Amino acid sequence: MNDFVFCAPTKVFFGKDTHKQAGSIVAGYGFKKIMLHFGGGSVKRNGVYDAVMDSLTSAGIEVVELGGVEPNPKMSLVRRGIALARETGVQLILALGGGSVIDSAKAIAVGTANEEDPALFFAKVAEPKAALPVGTILTLSAAGSEMSNSCVITNDETWEKRGLGSDFHRPLFSIMNPELTYTVDRWQTGCGIVDIMMHTLERYLTKESEMALTDRIAESILKTVVEYGRIAIDNPRDYEARAQLMWAGSLSHNGLTALGRDYFMCCHQIEHEISGMFDRVSHGAGLAVVFPAWCKFAYKHNIHRFAQYAVNVWNCEMNFAEPEKTALAGIRATEEFFASIGMPTRLSQLDIPEESIEELAWNTTFKGKRTLPGYGEYGKDEIIEILRLAL
Amino acid sequence: MNDFVFCAPTKVFFGKDTHKQAGSIVAGYGFKKIMLHFGGGSVKRNGVYDAVMDSLTSAGIEVVELGGVEPNPKMSLVRRGIALARETGVQLILALGGGSVIDSAKAIAVGTANEEDPALFFAKVAEPKAALPVGTILTLSAAGSEMSNSCVITNDETWEKRGLGSDFHRPLFSIMNPELTYTVDRWQTGCGIVDIMMHTLERYLTKESEMALTDRIAESILKTVVEYGRIAIDNPRDYEARAQLMWAGSLSHNGLTALGRDYFMCCHQIEHEISGMFDRVSHGAGLAVVFPAWCKFAYKHNIHRFAQYAVNVWNCEMNFAEPEKTALAGIRATEEFFASIGMPTRLSQLDIPEESIEELAWNTTFKGKRTLPGYGEYGKDEIIEILRLAL
Repeated sequence: MNDFVFCAPTKVFFGKDTHKQAGSIVAGYGFKKIMLHFGGGSVKRNGVYDAVMDSLTSAGIEVVELGGVEPNPKMSLVRRGIALARETGVQLILALGGGSVIDSAKAIAVGTANEEDPALFFAKVAEPKAALPVGTILTLSAAGSEMSNSCVITNDETWEKRGLGSDFHRPLFSIMNPELTYTVDRWQTGCGIVDIMMHTLERYLTKESEMALTDRIAESILKTVVEYGRIAIDNPRDYEARAQLMWAGSLSHNGLTALGRDYFMCCHQIEHEISGMFDRVSHGAGLAVVFPAWCKFAYKHNIHRFAQYAVNVWNCEMNFAEPEKTALAGIRATEEFFASIGMPTRLSQLDIPEESIEELAWNTTFKGKRTLPGYGEYGKDEIIEILRLAL
Repeated sequence: MNDFVFCAPTKVFFGKDTHKQAGSIVAGYGFKKIMLHFGGGSVKRNGVYDAVMDSLTSAGIEVVELGGVEPNPKMSLVRRGIALARETGVQLILALGGGSVIDSAKAIAVGTANEEDPALFFAKVAEPKAALPVGTILTLSAAGSEMSNSCVITNDETWEKRGLGSDFHRPLFSIMNPELTYTVDRWQTGCGIVDIMMHTLERYLTKESEMALTDRIAESILKTVVEYGRIAIDNPRDYEARAQLMWAGSLSHNGLTALGRDYFMCCHQIEHEISGMFDRVSHGAGLAVVFPAWCKFAYKHNIHRFAQYAVNVWNCEMNFAEPEKTALAGIRATEEFFASIGMPTRLSQLDIPEESIEELAWNTTFKGKRTLPGYGEYGKDEIIEILRLAL
């Protein structure tokens, strides 16, 4: 087991109608003036925005509003948010939405509290030294941003999509009402299921480091997401299924599933380039294409770990004589599951032509400036090979 | 799934030699003067005390010392600690030890920051409104107090052993080096294994509330503790085994294993009375006696849950025609495991005579002032019946 530091201090308010407690929760922390940050029309159409605003104003909270966050949230809106936060002197950025809204809120929180251009933090040229507090009201089970220290923003000048990890912007609190995800459609539910699984899988299918408890917890999350993901796809208003997915999403990305282990996140890096270049691509759908391809490229470097995944998550029979067959059965089971919940597993299903592969791979290496960690270091050639396995 | 609030903000520094970082960690929080609280001679004999003191003084931390914590920590020492903390104006209580030392530190932290007699908080007559910050350097995997919000103190005037749950005294940070537990003897290692399992089991074997992810995580902890507990008993210097037990101990009691479920903790309540009346009894050993008895009393009220425990934790074959047999097989497996690691499973092995049962049961009800929650409410008669099953 590797040494580790773990701190996941976000306070979680989980359950039915919890979004209606937003006002008392915010007031309980002593905040008086906040920014409510949200996306497009869905929270307005389904009444969630009204319920949250009622709760906040009834508690005497002064609210500055900033809507308009898009999927793959953009730096231009982050800059507007920073200007607005400074101008109005808000004390908290409250994100009402899914991962895109929360990530945008985190970037605003960091950008407001530091003098540097926020793009420098994402380019890793500068490091943030503080952030405004962030709270969330979650409406989508997927990104895990509600308990994580990471955020991903697309620079809409360069179309580079980059992540920033910082404990400063980890949410102070997150309000999670699974009922708010009843209206998430089949496609977005599927994308969320893949994203949750991938946050766990990229920490699980890694190099050797014996860490039994972390492995068992990772397998717990994966099995739960598969079981209840199927139910949520078939019956979007099943509270239990929506609740299991929501809590699994948070635990998958708050650090718990990586403790004592190294990890790569290289499928995420490749996918960020895909949805950075092709803005129409949902992150989860991109991951569903990249992951099986990466598995086929990578599994031979750690056959018994892929076999463990197959047996412990997918209930495959262990082939003790030929463990490779078990490893492959687990990859196949994953692809079949993704397909069964309506996810693509090939680049063609994302309308990404073969001709784009070379540019995608080159961009993933930041034009030759980095390699990706994996079983070995992946440069342009290896990423091309992975992406060709997704054709 | 029940609604829940979850917050486990303790920052964990886990790994080899981490106790030597105590000074830089304490200084990093800005503390300049602290109380170092510890037990008897073991930390002095094995060099841990010296290493921690070196680290603290090298970092310029002024240290006020208070040793002498006994197993089943006593209110009289807590009172001395409170007086000393007030007199010296320390900013942090740093516990160096196991659950007893940490619980004593928590009680001092609460007592110092409130005007009331601390015994009133444990008697539930008053509620604390603050606490000094608490840090821990863990030397025993058992109580889980290093991440929990609970503490248990024995009043050595009345010999009542009572718990106090409060987020105020939840540790700010915990330093966990599994190597510090290499010198824990076979008996105390066994007691710790039982205590860790019981913190999870008392949250798991409860009334109905579907909560798959919490169940899977609880089973993960239990399976890991059984697997690595056996190794640690046989080879006390196996780092991996000691590390798995240590991290399992923290996760078992930080709240994670109860989310979305009701729970009882009634075996703990009965055991507190046993080790309160018979100070020689170790908490874990008392639990190893009470738990199988409680299972035999309780399992018929939830046969399929006890069967789930048998199958998912002990790999028992499910008897679909007669699930009761599977439930009983799980209870038997637990008893056999406890015995295999040198734990008692009968009152006689604790030298507790049958004649004490009535008084124990009466005291557990606080002399008729409370019942215990379980499958139904347990009064004196039910507790007598449970204890008789431990004869």
